[in-house]
Amino acid sequence: MTRAPDDRRGWRLLVDAAELTRFTVEALEAAGARHSDALVTAEVLVAADLGGVESHGVARLRRYVEGLHDGAINRHAVPEVVSEKGSVCVVDAHNGLGQPALCRAVDLAVDRAQRFGTAAVAVRRSNHMGIAGWFAERAARSGMLAIVSTNAVPQVAPMGTNEPMFGTNPFCYAVPTAQGSLCFDGATSTVSRGKLEQLDRLGRPMRTGWALGPDGRPTTDIPETVQGLIHRKGYALLPLGGGDKEHGGHKGSALSLFVELLCGPLAGAQWSRHTYQGGEAGLGHIVFCLGLEALGDPDTILADVESLAREVREGGPADTAEAVRLPGDRRRLLTETRRAEGIPVLGSVLADLGDLARFVGVAPVRTMTCDV
Amino acid sequence: MTRAPDDRRGWRLLVDAAELTRFTVEALEAAGARHSDALVTAEVLVAADLGGVESHGVARLRRYVEGLHDGAINRHAVPEVVSEKGSVCVVDAHNGLGQPALCRAVDLAVDRAQRFGTAAVAVRRSNHMGIAGWFAERAARSGMLAIVSTNAVPQVAPMGTNEPMFGTNPFCYAVPTAQGSLCFDGATSTVSRGKLEQLDRLGRPMRTGWALGPDGRPTTDIPETVQGLIHRKGYALLPLGGGDKEHGGHKGSALSLFVELLCGPLAGAQWSRHTYQGGEAGLGHIVFCLGLEALGDPDTILADVESLAREVREGGPADTAEAVRLPGDRRRLLTETRRAEGIPVLGSVLADLGDLARFVGVAPVRTMTCDV
Repeated sequence: MTRAPDDRRGWRLLVDAAELTRFTVEALEAAGARHSDALVTAEVLVAADLGGVESHGVARLRRYVEGLHDGAINRHAVPEVVSEKGSVCVVDAHNGLGQPALCRAVDLAVDRAQRFGTAAVAVRRSNHMGIAGWFAERAARSGMLAIVSTNAVPQVAPMGTNEPMFGTNPFCYAVPTAQGSLCFDGATSTVSRGKLEQLDRLGRPMRTGWALGPDGRPTTDIPETVQGLIHRKGYALLPLGGGDKEHGGHKGSALSLFVELLCGPLAGAQWSRHTYQGGEAGLGHIVFCLGLEALGDPDTILADVESLAREVREGGPADTAEAVRLPGDRRRLLTETRRAEGIPVLGSVLADLGDLARFVGVAPVRTMTCDV
Repeated sequence: MTRAPDDRRGWRLLVDAAELTRFTVEALEAAGARHSDALVTAEVLVAADLGGVESHGVARLRRYVEGLHDGAINRHAVPEVVSEKGSVCVVDAHNGLGQPALCRAVDLAVDRAQRFGTAAVAVRRSNHMGIAGWFAERAARSGMLAIVSTNAVPQVAPMGTNEPMFGTNPFCYAVPTAQGSLCFDGATSTVSRGKLEQLDRLGRPMRTGWALGPDGRPTTDIPETVQGLIHRKGYALLPLGGGDKEHGGHKGSALSLFVELLCGPLAGAQWSRHTYQGGEAGLGHIVFCLGLEALGDPDTILADVESLAREVREGGPADTAEAVRLPGDRRRLLTETRRAEGIPVLGSVLADLGDLARFVGVAPVRTMTCDV
């Protein structure tokens, strides 16, 4: 078999992006999703694998398929605009897949921002929606500065508490550039659970200041922490800046709170401990858009954005030839390579997708050329 | 003299808030500011002292007075709306004081968000504007979720560089509550220069991961770092999360970049090294507003915000009676106390204000009752 170059612990096989998308769409449809919903969901999941955000890629497909199959996710849901005032819309996802609902929200926000200059669209009664960056970049392609956030299953303890109250609550923005966009998409915790799982696979340690055990003390045991988070045994991730004010934990907490406020109470969605109760996730998302052309001549703005980006890229130490990376650079580069050469998928993930294929009755993922 | 209770190193004397405001207004007017501009500027500066953000209070008055006096700040400037498209306005501050310009921007943003649901107002050609929180809270009092940011003199090295390129670029938000608002206002660096100066006065150490020396290595020498930042000798603060990815430095960098992009290129203002060049600061600010009533019934939203806040406050460890603090709590409590009992002002700051009083020819600051 062709081994992918980033193979370390756990073997990986290369899968063509189109094939991974084919499989994902078919599996979702077989589980009951409408074709159009399956398409956008697959695109977002595969975009994560292409961009090196494997924690949010097809490794999560089982949850979607099982959710659709057993009714935890409403396969018949059609996202509905339940209120609209000027540049603000509220979308009820009716407990359907998160991706189609948030995609609808982005398109509404872009349209309203084209008409009004700015827009905000909130989504309620939604589910996991993959990587926020996919959605922010979609808006940026229409000349928008975009902010996209979501709340999530509670895993992060705000500073001063030991209790997982907030989701990893990504703060994501995209600003258009000639090459695509400057797009940052990061959890407001120092690390996500997916990152811990990845470190575990790579045999690397976790640091003090990333998580607390159920006794409220720092823990550096990755498997225990991961299992403790999954099974809600009182383990908690810490916000960006950690658990103390000295390193800015109050700032990370405040950012996480901001996302929870926006995507919970303001969006009319559930929040904190109240998500994933009573049979549905009840998550909320938010999209803000600001049309560059409402601010001035878009060409001038884009040229200035490019200048700023160039100055930072060239701002590295004189003794290194490497350009400084800006948000989204790594993801864009990986996406180009992986589109051309295939996506390295972990053997354990492929095995899981094989199980899923049998479960829903679709053709399994075909990996790229065999050399054995 | 009455000693303030938080006296540690450097004596402090209590000053009544109204008296500190009186002095600030008179000093600004004597330096050439219009009365209305002096009033709003004084209110923002004294609000910082009331709220315990002394680094942004009257300790900065000298720069304002000297700037107005020597023409670095345009005393005749009237903030002008230079473009308007739907819910978006751009204000040219004409190199006047930052506070009146940003206050105008907030009022425009509130008005447009009342009409359109959302709004964004950018300010260009501006100066230092004090604490962003004052402005965000002003918008929140009108039922708005508000985001306020500004760029600033370059002091922060984005991850991967040694060079101070970004300002401490506060990210500030306010969400209305029954008691006022949940308002976070923090630099996107781990610490600000003002914080270092404060630690120095208190005789406390600085930490590795807060700043770099001109050789690109971490420094923990406070006086050297402060002087190196002031005199632009290649010292740099580090973004929230520090200088490495392990602690989330890439996240802090991305947030700082976000503010620099918004308040620089997007606002049509200067950025990074180009600020404070050619005789004016050229700073930019941004205000976003989202009217809660565009999202749903404001009473329901406010009740849910209160519930979320209460759950976090009560989420502290069982063995502590203390409620968990939320953003803005400390500032609100201090403000109440200091309004009633007086503001403790450092002797060194009072001496400086005394010099200023002689310089502009106004009555010096009157401290509260003497007991010697």
